[in-house]
Amino acid sequence: MSTEFEQVRSKRLAQLRSAMARAGIDAFVVPSSDPHLSEYLPGHWKGREWLSGFTGSVGTFIATANFAGVWTDGRYWTQAETELAGSEIALMKIPGAASQMHVDWLAANLAAGQTVAVDARVLGLAGARLLSDALSAKGIALRTDIDLLYEVWQDRPALPADPVFEHLPPYATMSRADKLAATRAAMEQHGAGFHVISTLDDIAYLFNLRGADVSFNPVFLAHALIGRADATLFVGEGKVPAEVRARLESDGVHLAPYANAATALSALPDGATLLLDPRRVTAGMRAAVAQGVNVVEAINPTTFAKSRKLDSEAVNVRAAMEQDGAALCEFFSWLEAELANGARAPLDEVAIDTHITAARARRPNFISPSFSTIAGFNSNGAIMHYRAAQETCATIEGDALLLIDSGGQYLGGTTDITRVIPVGTPSEAQKRDYTLVLKGLINLSATRFPRGTRSPMLDAIARAPIWAAGIDYGHGTGHGVGYFLNVHEGPQTISPAVPPDPHTAMEPGMITSIEPGIYRPGRWGIRIENLVLNRVVDNTEFGEYLGFETLTLCPIDTRPLDRSLLREDEIAWLNAYHATVRARLEPIVAGAARDWLIERTEAI
Amino acid sequence: MSTEFEQVRSKRLAQLRSAMARAGIDAFVVPSSDPHLSEYLPGHWKGREWLSGFTGSVGTFIATANFAGVWTDGRYWTQAETELAGSEIALMKIPGAASQMHVDWLAANLAAGQTVAVDARVLGLAGARLLSDALSAKGIALRTDIDLLYEVWQDRPALPADPVFEHLPPYATMSRADKLAATRAAMEQHGAGFHVISTLDDIAYLFNLRGADVSFNPVFLAHALIGRADATLFVGEGKVPAEVRARLESDGVHLAPYANAATALSALPDGATLLLDPRRVTAGMRAAVAQGVNVVEAINPTTFAKSRKLDSEAVNVRAAMEQDGAALCEFFSWLEAELANGARAPLDEVAIDTHITAARARRPNFISPSFSTIAGFNSNGAIMHYRAAQETCATIEGDALLLIDSGGQYLGGTTDITRVIPVGTPSEAQKRDYTLVLKGLINLSATRFPRGTRSPMLDAIARAPIWAAGIDYGHGTGHGVGYFLNVHEGPQTISPAVPPDPHTAMEPGMITSIEPGIYRPGRWGIRIENLVLNRVVDNTEFGEYLGFETLTLCPIDTRPLDRSLLREDEIAWLNAYHATVRARLEPIVAGAARDWLIERTEAI
Repeated sequence: MSTEFEQVRSKRLAQLRSAMARAGIDAFVVPSSDPHLSEYLPGHWKGREWLSGFTGSVGTFIATANFAGVWTDGRYWTQAETELAGSEIALMKIPGAASQMHVDWLAANLAAGQTVAVDARVLGLAGARLLSDALSAKGIALRTDIDLLYEVWQDRPALPADPVFEHLPPYATMSRADKLAATRAAMEQHGAGFHVISTLDDIAYLFNLRGADVSFNPVFLAHALIGRADATLFVGEGKVPAEVRARLESDGVHLAPYANAATALSALPDGATLLLDPRRVTAGMRAAVAQGVNVVEAINPTTFAKSRKLDSEAVNVRAAMEQDGAALCEFFSWLEAELANGARAPLDEVAIDTHITAARARRPNFISPSFSTIAGFNSNGAIMHYRAAQETCATIEGDALLLIDSGGQYLGGTTDITRVIPVGTPSEAQKRDYTLVLKGLINLSATRFPRGTRSPMLDAIARAPIWAAGIDYGHGTGHGVGYFLNVHEGPQTISPAVPPDPHTAMEPGMITSIEPGIYRPGRWGIRIENLVLNRVVDNTEFGEYLGFETLTLCPIDTRPLDRSLLREDEIAWLNAYHATVRARLEPIVAGAARDWLIERTEAI
Repeated sequence: MSTEFEQVRSKRLAQLRSAMARAGIDAFVVPSSDPHLSEYLPGHWKGREWLSGFTGSVGTFIATANFAGVWTDGRYWTQAETELAGSEIALMKIPGAASQMHVDWLAANLAAGQTVAVDARVLGLAGARLLSDALSAKGIALRTDIDLLYEVWQDRPALPADPVFEHLPPYATMSRADKLAATRAAMEQHGAGFHVISTLDDIAYLFNLRGADVSFNPVFLAHALIGRADATLFVGEGKVPAEVRARLESDGVHLAPYANAATALSALPDGATLLLDPRRVTAGMRAAVAQGVNVVEAINPTTFAKSRKLDSEAVNVRAAMEQDGAALCEFFSWLEAELANGARAPLDEVAIDTHITAARARRPNFISPSFSTIAGFNSNGAIMHYRAAQETCATIEGDALLLIDSGGQYLGGTTDITRVIPVGTPSEAQKRDYTLVLKGLINLSATRFPRGTRSPMLDAIARAPIWAAGIDYGHGTGHGVGYFLNVHEGPQTISPAVPPDPHTAMEPGMITSIEPGIYRPGRWGIRIENLVLNRVVDNTEFGEYLGFETLTLCPIDTRPLDRSLLREDEIAWLNAYHATVRARLEPIVAGAARDWLIERTEAI
């Protein structure tokens, strides 16, 4: 980081501490969060990044009078070390399964009678309870009614004002009216006449609306309050075009100003029953609920509903995957030609981002990338969530591995894929790592399991072949993926860090990533990622069994493989996958891209 | 069940309900528990069995004025159906991971203002809190100060009075003084000057004492209170011989009457800090603690310590496994000869129990079986915790599979092994199931994993080959095993039903069973079980890696295998295992047993 930025960062921290002192706050906490508990945040809510300089998508900032730190997990350690270097801000490493570590730190390092502050408007209700319990047990006070950033952050970005648009048939395959009816049926099961939703993907799903308020996630800032007969969408004025507004009205959906959501909760009638999800609304929203209201806590019905893609949605996803795969054939054939010819201009990681997005943009129904492309060359590949920037990025030259993790938002689905290609001649050690990662991918891809299996319990199946070599990776094996929605969605997660609670159960129609990896800091990083669809593949006296249909269609480079490490059944899996990729993509690619497809899908 | 027993059972239930009515109790709960939260109970505490007739080792009985039921998990359903048949007592099936189902039932089926009673003396503190929270949320009262069994159970067995003996070198490889010092060091880390222990295996481990108060577990009824300089063992008068008492005194361990433990807690000095394990002391013990005492809750230090066997203990376990394996060679060679010759007297499941125990008893240092032998022929093999009884047991004849699950307590270790042998000609379907179970065993046995991996996360690795065929089993894959102690011990458990909390982490020295199975009710049951030792097998830039050393030494019958279903690496594992078994056992068996060993360890 530059000296100039270092001075800015020091000054911000000093200003924050002055504000803390004035307000009588001993520790100030800034989570990576917004009023919708989003993963990707509008600039307005990137307070942790503004204060610390750490740009990773997950991390909690805490400052006291004589300490400042950012807590983050293994995916971000290398990045955070770089970004925090030169500052007084400590990197606090969260190992796999201990996401409450910063809470423990507060409880251990503050004294009874001191005060912790965090803004209730961006603090999840479930997290707020853990924090409150831990602090009150030590006699530490918690204030959630104060936003110190308001005082110190002068040039804070405004809330985004992008327009909202409808997700229409044939891509939206279930009507808004039907989704509202299904949600109300679930509300009835809880005896609830009202249901408040703050999570942006739940809202986008339920109303068949999309937006562009957040990078990569096609969502818009809103809260929703569903009643038995009508519903209110709290959204920035002017964002919803008149014709969409009219269509919403005809489905009994009224618009109200974005800022009025909390007020509406405080105006609910005495004796009403309100359903809310403590992990998906903020402490601030919960506090707004009128006293006489009976609150029922349960996971949002839409969170389950949107995770289980309809057959009609799966048809669209398969078509989107074909277009995505075709775009990748064009991109990779171009990239390899550039590398083989000795690129005219030096080819760097940023150029890869540009070209891969351009290839996708030539395909029908493409909207945007689904996340920031990760193109990591050699040691940059070991930075798990590396994002190439013009000033720091590596030039692709010499013998190495190039990791490319990218994805697209299409009207008919969301993609997310990681491939690694060799540049020059990979070493034997690189080939071994690459082959082990592929074994992990195959081992889980080929697994069948009882319907209802808790998704975290499947994690070890992908790791086992990698563990066998004394290697592990510091992230989960897979995350849920939305349907033209967030590239990370729940409720299923294939990760040892997630408690295998009932809501993590695997159900038909879910789309999940499988993405094992091996990262050797300072040397290279390897990850291979496909998206898979849960399908019922067997029905026996022991119940229904699910298997994975691999949705992602793109060759897995066979050149860095050490074939001697593969079993016959693994080779058969890979060859069958490549036969499918070739059959599905060949009709929609041409020229050099087609030649590349044929070559890269040869059986081994 | 006989009509006579049915009348007895009805009468007991009627008497209980009369007592409930007199005491104003609307629901009476009898857990499978005692003041030590033991798995195997002295007769005095078998109230649930006495009331319901269900003899399984896990189950909760609840009676109201118009309902009676037993909640139990999948291992016991078939058995409970048989044993509860003809009564009004309902079998309430607990699926895999929902052990609090009876609590939910109480909360749902009682009305506000009604009263639930359960004896605090046998109710775990952690469970008591869950129960109390669930009931108070519904306005249901909970009384824990009443034992209705005291009124209705006239011929209740007395507490056992068996003598206590010392576990001595070379089998006890760490002195009592050293164990007390290590426990006190752990107490210091919690800032605790006192530590109360109620769990019998923790007490037996810590004091290097053993007893015979409970079938199969070499423990004795006691509580212990450890101070910084001395310790008190609360144990029935006359149970500890004078010379052992003197040796205890020389280590600063004083004896006190068994009934005085709670009183001692109420007499702790003001300001003292007491360490206790909420999952390993009862609500009654917690309630006895004096008001001015600061209570620190954490897992018993001895629970961790005893789970991690010392190298010197592992040496003794290997020797015990050799003797156990030799006994099994003698038993199986006799059994197969009997079956081949057409047994003179009809050979039944009870006879198997008798003969297998006799074979073990001929071996040095054998003390007792480590649990009730399970010998299940054909459909009885599908009853997961089947215990053959003279009046119901099957005669071994015709084509079938015979499942034998047995184990021994030796001064140098505890064994637990399941094997299945074919009687006559197994069917193709039986061979397929048998082979799948073996694949599950091998898959997990061959796994390496990072030190600290949460044991429940390994469960799916054993299941994967069985799931692949649309089959599952309704029990965990593995449990911890003691060292001349309980055959079931924690803290590690390889099970999807156990939350993967930090204390479930795999550490070097732990001994765990691996025992996948397939059960087809009314047809056959298959389970293959070995004990394995966690050993450090690799140390890389990613940390320490553990692997399993298979401790159990006994051929796995290869006759029911469908070799075509086995991969080359699986065949190699099996042949290597059999080579080890032959090499280790051949020197200590002779005659027919030796011939059997050689034949059954032939490579396939």
